[in-house]
Amino acid sequence: MRMAELSRESGVPVATIKYYQREGLLPPGELTSPNQARYSAVHVRRPKLVRALLEIGDPGTSTHDILGLAQHGLPMVTQEVTEEDRAWALGRIEEVARKRGWEVHPGSRVVESLVGVLCALRRVGHEWVLDALDSYAESADAVAEADVTAVAKLGATEVVAEGAVVGTVLGDALQAALRRLAHAQASQRVFTV
Amino acid sequence: MRMAELSRESGVPVATIKYYQREGLLPPGELTSPNQARYSAVHVRRPKLVRALLEIGDPGTSTHDILGLAQHGLPMVTQEVTEEDRAWALGRIEEVARKRGWEVHPGSRVVESLVGVLCALRRVGHEWVLDALDSYAESADAVAEADVTAVAKLGATEVVAEGAVVGTVLGDALQAALRRLAHAQASQRVFTV
Repeated sequence: MRMAELSRESGVPVATIKYYQREGLLPPGELTSPNQARYSAVHVRRPKLVRALLEIGDPGTSTHDILGLAQHGLPMVTQEVTEEDRAWALGRIEEVARKRGWEVHPGSRVVESLVGVLCALRRVGHEWVLDALDSYAESADAVAEADVTAVAKLGATEVVAEGAVVGTVLGDALQAALRRLAHAQASQRVFTV
Repeated sequence: MRMAELSRESGVPVATIKYYQREGLLPPGELTSPNQARYSAVHVRRPKLVRALLEIGDPGTSTHDILGLAQHGLPMVTQEVTEEDRAWALGRIEEVARKRGWEVHPGSRVVESLVGVLCALRRVGHEWVLDALDSYAESADAVAEADVTAVAKLGATEVVAEGAVVGTVLGDALQAALRRLAHAQASQRVFTV
């Protein structure tokens, strides 16, 4: 199909599709002449997907931010941490990971994100949040198991890869919102006895 | 204490503290003369806290964004949803909430965030993510219970309130990072059998 049809099918304006292409968010079509390209079903799905991912951010969030989110999906704490705080944080992370059989690679984005969060908690005097660390870890295992089981059913590798990005980014939002729904209930239980 | 001492104690520069005050992030000190104010222990904690919350965002994230995050803490999907999609999403949310004894208030920020996420998943053809919805909900209950139990031990109402904000915002980051650590393990289990 041509660009005009791609726009109609995906419901995303031509100018927006061209923008996604310039940003590398949408693969180029197959060139049929120097000025014309042909698009396939993949191209119809992708603009809708990109749009959905872009909407997870606030209106002012840049494409770059969202790409970072989709690729890494983790908030990073930017303040420098002392060697001592870092060692303490890594110790806590390794302890919880050992219990759950997780591998820990210091320097990886996920571990550095965790180090940042733990150090931020310590710096502001709210280390008590980590009293719940084992519950967080146990829940992470349960959710990850369900995620991976669901994504595995998608079959084709390309769909699994796309699904992993969607599930990771939108799964964060799902998890954050559900935790707040559950907070109201738990708070009623704990604070009104 | 005076401003200079507050800066020294909190480790946050005077200019930054004044900026937090202008933004309403730090309560004013007690005026001792038209140009001088006195600050207390609350003022020493707060700049460090604000700084830690600001760091959760990317370097470019505005204070406004972070305030929104601390107050609401939820990504909102901005695209309009059709009436039909909205009804479907609310149905799924009410179903899961009923099972867990959660109250659902359509129009509240948390429910609208969920509606947005569910509709985004449907729009991009990744509704399968919701196969794991019950696991997400069960985990949310476990984590919320641990959160509230931990925060309740803080005692004084003001500390509990501050703790709730810190725990909510940094807890999201903790949850997101741990889910990814667990993914690697779950993925190995599911995809290599």
